[in-house]
Amino acid sequence: MTDLSAVKAALKSQRIETPSWAYGNSGTRFKVFAQAGVPRDPYEKLDDAAQVQAVTGVAPVVSLHIPWDKVADYAALAAHAKDRGLVLGAINSNVFQDDDYKLGSVCHPDADVRRKALAHLLECVDIMDATGSRDLKLWFADGTNYPGQDDVSARQDRLAEALAAVCERLGDDQRMLLEYKLFEPAFYTTDVPDWGTAYAHCLKLGPKAQVVVDTGHHAPGTNIEFIVAVLLREQKLGGFDFNSRFYADDDLMVGAADPFQLFRIMHEVVKNGGLAAETGVAFMLDQCHNIEAKIPAIVRSVMNVQEATAKALLVDAAALTAAQRAGDVLEANSVLMDAYNTDVRPLLAEVREELGLHPDPVAAYRASGWQERIVAGRVGGQQAGWGA
Amino acid sequence: MTDLSAVKAALKSQRIETPSWAYGNSGTRFKVFAQAGVPRDPYEKLDDAAQVQAVTGVAPVVSLHIPWDKVADYAALAAHAKDRGLVLGAINSNVFQDDDYKLGSVCHPDADVRRKALAHLLECVDIMDATGSRDLKLWFADGTNYPGQDDVSARQDRLAEALAAVCERLGDDQRMLLEYKLFEPAFYTTDVPDWGTAYAHCLKLGPKAQVVVDTGHHAPGTNIEFIVAVLLREQKLGGFDFNSRFYADDDLMVGAADPFQLFRIMHEVVKNGGLAAETGVAFMLDQCHNIEAKIPAIVRSVMNVQEATAKALLVDAAALTAAQRAGDVLEANSVLMDAYNTDVRPLLAEVREELGLHPDPVAAYRASGWQERIVAGRVGGQQAGWGA
Amino acid sequence: MTDLSAVKAALKSQRIETPSWAYGNSGTRFKVFAQAGVPRDPYEKLDDAAQVQAVTGVAPVVSLHIPWDKVADYAALAAHAKDRGLVLGAINSNVFQDDDYKLGSVCHPDADVRRKALAHLLECVDIMDATGSRDLKLWFADGTNYPGQDDVSARQDRLAEALAAVCERLGDDQRMLLEYKLFEPAFYTTDVPDWGTAYAHCLKLGPKAQVVVDTGHHAPGTNIEFIVAVLLREQKLGGFDFNSRFYADDDLMVGAADPFQLFRIMHEVVKNGGLAAETGVAFMLDQCHNIEAKIPAIVRSVMNVQEATAKALLVDAAALTAAQRAGDVLEANSVLMDAYNTDVRPLLAEVREELGLHPDPVAAYRASGWQERIVAGRVGGQQAGWGA
Amino acid sequence: MTDLSAVKAALKSQRIETPSWAYGNSGTRFKVFAQAGVPRDPYEKLDDAAQVQAVTGVAPVVSLHIPWDKVADYAALAAHAKDRGLVLGAINSNVFQDDDYKLGSVCHPDADVRRKALAHLLECVDIMDATGSRDLKLWFADGTNYPGQDDVSARQDRLAEALAAVCERLGDDQRMLLEYKLFEPAFYTTDVPDWGTAYAHCLKLGPKAQVVVDTGHHAPGTNIEFIVAVLLREQKLGGFDFNSRFYADDDLMVGAADPFQLFRIMHEVVKNGGLAAETGVAFMLDQCHNIEAKIPAIVRSVMNVQEATAKALLVDAAALTAAQRAGDVLEANSVLMDAYNTDVRPLLAEVREELGLHPDPVAAYRASGWQERIVAGRVGGQQAGWGA
Repeated sequence: MTDLSAVKAALKSQRIETPSWAYGNSGTRFKVFAQAGVPRDPYEKLDDAAQVQAVTGVAPVVSLHIPWDKVADYAALAAHAKDRGLVLGAINSNVFQDDDYKLGSVCHPDADVRRKALAHLLECVDIMDATGSRDLKLWFADGTNYPGQDDVSARQDRLAEALAAVCERLGDDQRMLLEYKLFEPAFYTTDVPDWGTAYAHCLKLGPKAQVVVDTGHHAPGTNIEFIVAVLLREQKLGGFDFNSRFYADDDLMVGAADPFQLFRIMHEVVKNGGLAAETGVAFMLDQCHNIEAKIPAIVRSVMNVQEATAKALLVDAAALTAAQRAGDVLEANSVLMDAYNTDVRPLLAEVREELGLHPDPVAAYRASGWQERIVAGRVGGQQAGWGA
Repeated sequence: MTDLSAVKAALKSQRIETPSWAYGNSGTRFKVFAQAGVPRDPYEKLDDAAQVQAVTGVAPVVSLHIPWDKVADYAALAAHAKDRGLVLGAINSNVFQDDDYKLGSVCHPDADVRRKALAHLLECVDIMDATGSRDLKLWFADGTNYPGQDDVSARQDRLAEALAAVCERLGDDQRMLLEYKLFEPAFYTTDVPDWGTAYAHCLKLGPKAQVVVDTGHHAPGTNIEFIVAVLLREQKLGGFDFNSRFYADDDLMVGAADPFQLFRIMHEVVKNGGLAAETGVAFMLDQCHNIEAKIPAIVRSVMNVQEATAKALLVDAAALTAAQRAGDVLEANSVLMDAYNTDVRPLLAEVREELGLHPDPVAAYRASGWQERIVAGRVGGQQAGWGA
Repeated sequence: MTDLSAVKAALKSQRIETPSWAYGNSGTRFKVFAQAGVPRDPYEKLDDAAQVQAVTGVAPVVSLHIPWDKVADYAALAAHAKDRGLVLGAINSNVFQDDDYKLGSVCHPDADVRRKALAHLLECVDIMDATGSRDLKLWFADGTNYPGQDDVSARQDRLAEALAAVCERLGDDQRMLLEYKLFEPAFYTTDVPDWGTAYAHCLKLGPKAQVVVDTGHHAPGTNIEFIVAVLLREQKLGGFDFNSRFYADDDLMVGAADPFQLFRIMHEVVKNGGLAAETGVAFMLDQCHNIEAKIPAIVRSVMNVQEATAKALLVDAAALTAAQRAGDVLEANSVLMDAYNTDVRPLLAEVREELGLHPDPVAAYRASGWQERIVAGRVGGQQAGWGA
Repeated sequence: MTDLSAVKAALKSQRIETPSWAYGNSGTRFKVFAQAGVPRDPYEKLDDAAQVQAVTGVAPVVSLHIPWDKVADYAALAAHAKDRGLVLGAINSNVFQDDDYKLGSVCHPDADVRRKALAHLLECVDIMDATGSRDLKLWFADGTNYPGQDDVSARQDRLAEALAAVCERLGDDQRMLLEYKLFEPAFYTTDVPDWGTAYAHCLKLGPKAQVVVDTGHHAPGTNIEFIVAVLLREQKLGGFDFNSRFYADDDLMVGAADPFQLFRIMHEVVKNGGLAAETGVAFMLDQCHNIEAKIPAIVRSVMNVQEATAKALLVDAAALTAAQRAGDVLEANSVLMDAYNTDVRPLLAEVREELGLHPDPVAAYRASGWQERIVAGRVGGQQAGWGA
């Protein structure tokens, strides 16, 4: 039997982190379709994030991306967040958009480029000090496009050196989250292509170094929830970059492509204690709303994570364990599917009402008039996007 | 026994079409790395293409992309080509970079957008009339990102209507080449995702409508040479967009990722008569040289197609057929591998010398001083790329 | 607004066909794990199928596989079925388990082998005449393992010849369902690897020849519901072989690996009229219950198809079309997801009770005591499996 | 400049290990096609392996599989090998073909089954003591087919416990090679699905535990040579199970599906010192010759490994490093491709002649009359295969 009040308490205390860049424009290599009302600066991004938090109540944290969110005064930015009931979350570094990085950043064959890249990473830690962020999220576009282009092992050496320097610089309450990705933008080798590589580096770097799982960064057929379970068992799961995909790193709304997979992931998280705040697992979104309205898409994504979490919390753990131990394949699967097949939307509506929120966040956002205000008000200036 | 003089003759008469846009800048959604010396307009692209033709002797045709290659006077552009020993090849349409195309072009739910897209396609046929191009190459970014976003069948109806209108407009010696692609930029459905869909449309449209096979546009594990054989058997193979990939539509140099696959493709082409000019198979490149020098990369790509073709021509057809009929699996495989394992570079060097060319095209390009001239001379102006 | 009585009527009239071989033993190349109580002959398979029908009410049709279900008197077998409220469904041919078929059957380089294979296919039509089956389901293991092993085009010619002979033999009310499969047991080329190849053959053969979609037979990333929509639009969808997969042709219970995909498939079926009996779409299961109890697994599979169908029927078609026409991506997706997120188990329980059935088929099967009876009673003899 | 005599020396000292089971019958789940002349027992398998060694000179080691190669007297078997110029190589355990292993072996929820499985593994070490084998190769079919079926983390705990017990039992000169595999026969989770999981276990177990890379066991798109480079850098590469695949674990002849990939793998091996005997990398074949003649297929496979190795040895390391350091993408790729495009068959013919062998191993085998002798002589008895 599941304890509904415990389920509700868990759902109320969940914290989902939304990414500043998802409020700005994004696209594919073929075209970026601009949207009306998109923020022009990090302050406006926070204003939008505050709307997501206002209607969901579980998204008070916002990740930043440097230099896309570069400001003169990070303490002022943190204060702007705080005034809106938000806190600043992970600082995401960017060592892939400077001309110098054509052949890599911290893995580049040229030591000067490596030094430049490392300096940026260290600067990000400075920013963390200013924003009070706990996490530095590192994703490297580093890799090669052609066989022979560079030495795979040498690049691993260079990577290890840079990561060690970053870890050394971190404060006592700061962490380094290392992200892996199969491919794109590198097309032959990627220097951190899989969880094994990220894990091997993090293991040597100690407890401050943790692996982050981006749900869109795997080879076809990879069982992501298995990786989640293994990393939790190894105490090396730093967090998630949630999004969904049908093919590659599609960066669609989390839960849109395979809601059952998201549930299975959250089931491993719940079963292995990953929902407890002290485990330190960060539930971050990393998405691109190329063609759909951005703020409602982020609201919908937060809700999708909530629904998967609610279903995972509803799994009858005792019945599941009993069936597993008895080797009853169909019954064990059935216990899990019972939770998945439950319509948790009424439960989440209750949770929201108990939090003093409107039961339907999408309707609440629509009713708020915010979309009309930003479309009317954010005229002129340069819309935020990946390039700036 | 293979007749070497026939092999050489076939290699001398092969025509490989290079794409104007490969001479310009390109990149991923993360970054476009500009290169020094890149053309500023279609005329300069043709100047570069002429260098590729000068050193290879088999690349006299250049595909254009509209509007990236929009000029005031297409006859003048054709004359510029002719002066350099080139001819203008396929006209590639672009109905994916206008803000109106966010939800599609000829498959868009809004009839106004569909009309606009069709008008562009028809304009491309006008340009073909001016340039003397035989082929209109149609690739549609059309598709959807989310389940439910649009009606799959209705989109097929709209597509069929547009294709029929284009076919109707074509002159007697003009063709429509329909390209398919699994995904990107659409991430849930693509309106022409596979050869079956392209084939089904082309079949209804008659002999002017042919399928084009882009070697980077398939699901993992797809046997491309099988598709080539089937399309040739159905007389529906219009041509290739050659490039290579490890993961998705990586657009690397053809033959770089899987030279054996390229050989197997050319084996089916040769075996099924596709090398004969009268079959009408267009051997086009469609690549992005994001991090490598562009002109030498195109030279190398042309050479890779030549090497695969040479090996395919060296297959001992009689021995292969005999082993196949005898059901001798190892011997049949061995006959094919003998050709593949042959180092055909000396043979191609001879072919080039018999054509009055330097035996090593890459060395010849380096010695020409062209790269230094364009780097020094093409200063100022707006470099060509996908965006313009 | 959805009309609930129409939804219920559709659910009551749905017919799901279960495969005789799923009641027998199966396994992987590594091991077949026998289960107690498994049938020893086709008559006992029908006895088991009758239990599935007894508790679900929508599974009265049973596919046979020749020679696995070879009997002396097919009329007697049909009568056995009829006595239990069943009818005999598709006849599945088998031209892959004789030593002669090592290099193929109807595509074999040796004409004698081809003749033998064709004779078997024609014998299957004789059996259809005796059983009253409408459908001949053809799946060919034909293909090659090594490049060069055989001539791809020649094999297509041989295939076309055999299919034409089979079609010619069919009676007025009989159909030929051609199945495609990416790979396994052939590992380089498969002679009918994709829907395009199956479609191209069926198109030439006329309306009696239809394509069957096995949900486990595609390349990774293939959008199956797109294929379903296209085949329905072309009036070439003969039916489904339902099962589910995480990796390759895993043959797991349908809906177990990706219930959302099954829903999307059923959405295309419903939207495009494929649920109507007159469309002739056969909803067949083709699964292997290697490690789970067989009869309950088939019951569960039937229920999974029902649940996906129910959700598809609940989609608010008018709201969906309105959102699609308006280009409202999020709203259109939301309308679809509303149906998917609905818990349809209570609705199906009602449907069953209105049919005079127990609301919970799994519980009903357990309570029936059938499992205990067959485990106790089916002692001795040779258990049925793929090999015999 | 490459030193040809060093290349030849390296090629002469290479040791390729052939698997006893590749000499016996094998197949897919659909059918095992028996071949005439196949061995009836382990002694005859060694007789066949001796023929491969006789014509190649680099394949003196033979892996065994227990219980398929169970004999009363392993010392006698080792003597039989020695008499034929062979040594016994890795002992492969089998904990997947007993009825008890339906839900797993060392990861099974039932402690009794786990104990039984562990006892088998320890028995394999006893056999190693008798045969003088250095390596115990562990591949586990363990996993689950359905979400919820068992507890992923608990299974990892059970696995860790068994591996520790095995490692503890190993002698000073013995090793445990842990193999990973994405899927098959398990279809939802596999308990050692990727190199990261194998690595994490081996790291905790110490230097005797090493990872083995089966080239057919990865997700589509996985860069295997990257894994090879990383494992060599971590001193955790125990060896290879060579074979090739187009789709899944096809177990085709190594080098048949993607000879360029095999070259890239051998390039990483050579570059990172893995060819040196003291590194301990075992170059094993693990293949199924389902439709082709077995002994010639193994000869061909050995030759394919040799050709890839020869090409890797011919890479101009200095030129490669220079181009890599200069960031010259095309030149670095070109240096690698120069080696790959070289026809190394003449070089290997020389190497063989210098070893006193026929330059063409396939011709030598044909001329030996062995095939005719075994077809005529091995009549009656039970042919060896996977099942016994």
